[in-house]
Amino acid sequence: MNKASLMKKCLSLAKRAEGKTSPNPMVGALLIKDGEIIANDYHRKPGTPHAEALVLKQAGDRAKGASLFVTLEPCCHTNKRTPPCTNAIIASQIKDVFIAMLDPNPMVSGRGVDILKASGINVEIGILEDEAKKLNEAYIKYITTKRPFVTLKIAMTLDGKIADPEGHSKWITCEESRKVVHRLRSASDGLLSAIGTVLADNPSFTARIRGGIDPIRIIIDPDLKTPDGFNVLKTPPPTIIVCKDGNPRSSILINNGIEILTYKDKLDLNWLMEELGKRQIMSILIEGGSTLAGHALEESIVDKVMFFIAPKIIRGKDSLTAIGGETFQKINEAHQLKEYKIKKIGSDFLIEGYLS
Amino acid sequence: MNKASLMKKCLSLAKRAEGKTSPNPMVGALLIKDGEIIANDYHRKPGTPHAEALVLKQAGDRAKGASLFVTLEPCCHTNKRTPPCTNAIIASQIKDVFIAMLDPNPMVSGRGVDILKASGINVEIGILEDEAKKLNEAYIKYITTKRPFVTLKIAMTLDGKIADPEGHSKWITCEESRKVVHRLRSASDGLLSAIGTVLADNPSFTARIRGGIDPIRIIIDPDLKTPDGFNVLKTPPPTIIVCKDGNPRSSILINNGIEILTYKDKLDLNWLMEELGKRQIMSILIEGGSTLAGHALEESIVDKVMFFIAPKIIRGKDSLTAIGGETFQKINEAHQLKEYKIKKIGSDFLIEGYLS
Repeated sequence: MNKASLMKKCLSLAKRAEGKTSPNPMVGALLIKDGEIIANDYHRKPGTPHAEALVLKQAGDRAKGASLFVTLEPCCHTNKRTPPCTNAIIASQIKDVFIAMLDPNPMVSGRGVDILKASGINVEIGILEDEAKKLNEAYIKYITTKRPFVTLKIAMTLDGKIADPEGHSKWITCEESRKVVHRLRSASDGLLSAIGTVLADNPSFTARIRGGIDPIRIIIDPDLKTPDGFNVLKTPPPTIIVCKDGNPRSSILINNGIEILTYKDKLDLNWLMEELGKRQIMSILIEGGSTLAGHALEESIVDKVMFFIAPKIIRGKDSLTAIGGETFQKINEAHQLKEYKIKKIGSDFLIEGYLS
Repeated sequence: MNKASLMKKCLSLAKRAEGKTSPNPMVGALLIKDGEIIANDYHRKPGTPHAEALVLKQAGDRAKGASLFVTLEPCCHTNKRTPPCTNAIIASQIKDVFIAMLDPNPMVSGRGVDILKASGINVEIGILEDEAKKLNEAYIKYITTKRPFVTLKIAMTLDGKIADPEGHSKWITCEESRKVVHRLRSASDGLLSAIGTVLADNPSFTARIRGGIDPIRIIIDPDLKTPDGFNVLKTPPPTIIVCKDGNPRSSILINNGIEILTYKDKLDLNWLMEELGKRQIMSILIEGGSTLAGHALEESIVDKVMFFIAPKIIRGKDSLTAIGGETFQKINEAHQLKEYKIKKIGSDFLIEGYLS
């Protein structure tokens, strides 16, 4: 087995904890000695041992002289609930450490490697670095900016519509696409929507797949119009409602276990992202309507877009456009997607990409 | 070489005359004898010999005992400018005839085959039939319905817009996509657009590729608002303007070589398709705006759609939607695409498919 295939195995291990490690990254590791994998494991959730600690423990004395593969630079800081991994690696007399990517936190990046090298361990960095960065794209955004990584999801017809003029939107996309969306919900810490979508569909926004972890729901509802008994008010999962301050209904909702986040006059989505970051919400999936999608792009909070496109056409100048809002970009100043690609999902297409 | 690869060669030969054979089909043929291709050719344009006649002439006496591969059932009718191919095949003492598809004209379909069989020739039908039908999809529609095959082309942003609210639409798609559109124009007998697009862009709608054949331009301009000197009024290529009857400007345009086609009250696109069919316009490419696209789908004149999708987003509820119009389909009654597929064209995506 070459280095890339061993690192690939570590990345697969890491991904098993998708949606569970926040605000930590997903990390996988393995130990190989004399061509044999003697231990492999991954970080489960905050407060539990790191992947490196798990494999070293698994291997015990056999770790001496082994090579460690790990998807992220081992930690060296002591301000955590878990002891620094660099110490454990050195103590276990590991010979080589192969790392996919450095710790993205600029305050500590490279220091773990320095400590390992200083103790005479051979260290190599950058094996499947792009894949590792993609796996932890939300963590990287969060740790470097203190804001969540935001994915805007759109489910639309081929002619760019998310609902007909009467507001019907069920079901534009196919069952397989909707299943992918439930997996996205499960992998996201938070799900952002707005009152229009809540009133139209009474969604619960839960992750209805086996083993799915429901995201925290963040609903923009300026005047607290979400009716009593609606699904987003049924907790768990937790719900944060974002509304104008001074609404007397707030206290009733708070008593019912809803968190209320208030703003004055006009909602600033960048402020909201900061607030959600403070709550250690590392990733957000936006599943709203045309207006929210427009604002999110206008205010530049979106990192990634995912357009699920059904092979159908509904026509109509009054049908709801996928991305609306009062403002727009001129053609020559359009939001440009980068690293975009297309996949077939059931009978639909998925075009996904990143914003510059 | 097996039968499929020989037929594939015939189809490639046929396609060389793309855009030039209307109202005839594209047809390719070859003769093979003792494992050697002794002749191959294709139908060039109306009034010139059929592909079968060309290869029989090429081979001369050597045709005796050879096998003929041809993409369309040989003709047996005498109401053409060219003699029936069945006679020539029988006279040349051809042993086997391999045919991709029967003549789609229900009045004659199968009769050519019957005549060949009756004379003792071994006939096999259906080799690469799907490919042959696709190659001549316009001819098939035209010969069976007397109306043109209609392709609706859309060039839009990922969020389904063809222009910003100020009307800017240049350039949404990439250079490669625009080149494909010029090839489509060249392969189409007619190009249908409307006054809104003419006023916005002053397009010439010509096929600006090497060897390109300009389509006849059909412009829906109810009140004859196309300004003097605009590109669509510069002939050749010919222009047909569709307008309400009784407009005094008609005679001036007619004097300038423009054909005027008039209607009362409200334009019926199905009537227009019949009129264009009468003029032996076998295929139409629609390159219009949001409203024309909406009407064309609403009135069910569209056979095929081609969506060129640029990886960019412009937002805006007032941006122009790809397919507009006053009416719409409910989600559960949407126009469903069939046999759809996706291609990458430069930096864009092309989703194309057929309407049921």
